[in-house]
Amino acid sequence: MNKQVNIDELEVGFDVPALPGMDEADIQTPCLVLDLDALEYNIKKMGDYAKAHGMRHRAHGKMHKSVDVLKLQMELGGAVGVCCQKVSEAEVFARAGIKEILVSNQVRDAAKIDRLARMPKVSGGEVIVCVDDVANVADLDAAAAKHGTNLGVFVEIDCGAGRCGVTTTEAVVEIGKAVRDAGNLTFRGIQAYQGAMQHMDSFDDRQAKLDAAIAQVQEGIDGLKAEGIECDLVSGGGTGSYYFESNSGVYNELQCGSYAFMDADYGRILDKDGNRIDDGEWKNAMFLLTSVMSHAKADKAIVDAGLKAQSIDSGLPFIYGRSDVEYIKCSDEHGVVADPDGVLKVNDKLRLVPGHCDPTANVHDWYVGVRNGKVETVWPVSARGKAY
Amino acid sequence: MNKQVNIDELEVGFDVPALPGMDEADIQTPCLVLDLDALEYNIKKMGDYAKAHGMRHRAHGKMHKSVDVLKLQMELGGAVGVCCQKVSEAEVFARAGIKEILVSNQVRDAAKIDRLARMPKVSGGEVIVCVDDVANVADLDAAAAKHGTNLGVFVEIDCGAGRCGVTTTEAVVEIGKAVRDAGNLTFRGIQAYQGAMQHMDSFDDRQAKLDAAIAQVQEGIDGLKAEGIECDLVSGGGTGSYYFESNSGVYNELQCGSYAFMDADYGRILDKDGNRIDDGEWKNAMFLLTSVMSHAKADKAIVDAGLKAQSIDSGLPFIYGRSDVEYIKCSDEHGVVADPDGVLKVNDKLRLVPGHCDPTANVHDWYVGVRNGKVETVWPVSARGKAY
Repeated sequence: MNKQVNIDELEVGFDVPALPGMDEADIQTPCLVLDLDALEYNIKKMGDYAKAHGMRHRAHGKMHKSVDVLKLQMELGGAVGVCCQKVSEAEVFARAGIKEILVSNQVRDAAKIDRLARMPKVSGGEVIVCVDDVANVADLDAAAAKHGTNLGVFVEIDCGAGRCGVTTTEAVVEIGKAVRDAGNLTFRGIQAYQGAMQHMDSFDDRQAKLDAAIAQVQEGIDGLKAEGIECDLVSGGGTGSYYFESNSGVYNELQCGSYAFMDADYGRILDKDGNRIDDGEWKNAMFLLTSVMSHAKADKAIVDAGLKAQSIDSGLPFIYGRSDVEYIKCSDEHGVVADPDGVLKVNDKLRLVPGHCDPTANVHDWYVGVRNGKVETVWPVSARGKAY
Repeated sequence: MNKQVNIDELEVGFDVPALPGMDEADIQTPCLVLDLDALEYNIKKMGDYAKAHGMRHRAHGKMHKSVDVLKLQMELGGAVGVCCQKVSEAEVFARAGIKEILVSNQVRDAAKIDRLARMPKVSGGEVIVCVDDVANVADLDAAAAKHGTNLGVFVEIDCGAGRCGVTTTEAVVEIGKAVRDAGNLTFRGIQAYQGAMQHMDSFDDRQAKLDAAIAQVQEGIDGLKAEGIECDLVSGGGTGSYYFESNSGVYNELQCGSYAFMDADYGRILDKDGNRIDDGEWKNAMFLLTSVMSHAKADKAIVDAGLKAQSIDSGLPFIYGRSDVEYIKCSDEHGVVADPDGVLKVNDKLRLVPGHCDPTANVHDWYVGVRNGKVETVWPVSARGKAY
């Protein structure tokens, strides 16, 4: 939903899956359910960790795409603002008045650059963007000049994700100097997110990758310093790595996202003691609620959440709290649940933990927040589909 | 979008990716583009085929979720109405006044049954639903009686998809009799979609599966006839099988969807002469338009369409009309394109053919219809996210 809506005017089952005050049993499925106690636990825990380690936490809005979840991260978890991956996504948070916005990505299209340069007027705060090509600097500067604004810039270092970002200190310094010399840009620091290691199971493997990234970032900082360019912010870190960045002495800003909701893929990675991180470190807070809609075969239940209610890029969901039934297959609108003992009945509800929370959230319009068996809140997935 | 919207009031890049009259080059990416010439070709061709074979075509709206595409299928392709998979999806078409609606799925939740029973009053036409459990009949009948409506019923036979549907003629007949005896239900025939064979590459393998399905359906028809119950409609068939159903002498209604847009997974299956079906039989009409946003490594271009702009359940997209570059990897907001000769430049646009059209359409809000390099139409994905 782009505009503010009064959800009481919406029709349950057509526009929204639930309304505040309803019993959890009456939620229309499939839909995303947030366990508010677990969500608050995760948010507070990450906030406490960041505070104790002197780190800023700029929560990643690409994961939840929700102004309401971000506000909870700011109020309860001390988050300083938001990271976004897309201009249209950032605009949703800008319109909500978020004062610290980072587009942790490259913006190259002329229309998008124009919208980005206008954004500080919308949010009334700072907007930072990443750059990995010196040719981008003049375009950003010209657009900011046109709108009478100033854009912050991070130089993006590819420290292992293999996507955007420069790989040499020479390129870091070249971009830093061009930004320093641009009239409507401010050099703010470094973006260095090691995305490829976040999902490696072993803590030691992740640490080795992060050690290499930290050394690479340190070299960039030193290279810039030699030209008299200071990095106010060095930003990165995710749910699988935030402790490495926090203890690096190099990074001072985290960008965690998935910790708030968790998913099956992140749940499988191990902490330093060899325990799954969803077994103590973080709680599963987001579930895909689904109902049994057919049980015509004795050993198989068919549920109403398939490919259009989730992304299976990181594997199938698991069924929360159940070892007697298993989600084994998925087509557009159906999931097949193995039910060898025939324990499920039509209309039984199951809580699925999706393989990957980010693209799963992105197919839904609403989060239904529940506590003690009641629907407490219904929040729009404010930036759903904002991919431009 | 649930409500009718005036797209001229929307902001390009925030609400919509393009406006009619724009040059194709100015479309904001990533977004779905429809090649209107190809779309019309596909729609007319299937319409002509169905007519020549005396088949009704009830186009599957679950694929495109678009009232505008359906209307084209009805006007240009002679489609009689629409199939839907969800009650909320069907409601979108009902509100658009579509007179023949089939929910080709089971509806068991009490609130959904109530909405379904109300739907004939909304559409002013016939609404048919599938049943695979005799226990469902009384609930549907009671809801229709409450709303003073009549619902059509298909008994669903599982002829190989392994999801919903009964597997014995005994069960078919039991449901048929219960529906016949219900005051506010009308027995309309059989739903028998063999979903599992649609994507088998070999024509002969598909034919063998369909031959078995046809025999199973014929047995169901005969069983019902022995109880004096006639099947007015026998409905099924998809893009990988419609010729089998059309020549079966058993089916009289098709439910094709993907033929209109095509995708990489369907494109790979072979016709009876061993040719890919996207090489002559059907044209690719839906593309995921993407732009190069970073080229910091010489042999890799990073594009702006990742997991949130498509579903990769059936594999990665291919790049249309290009053999020099290849889409090789995908994360939430990024695609990695191998560019061994460095032919791509930042802001170059590529047309991706997604692995699977249905769940890809479901993450987008708009279809941008193009012809001769100009944006001709911008259509909402009317039932996007209607999963309840």
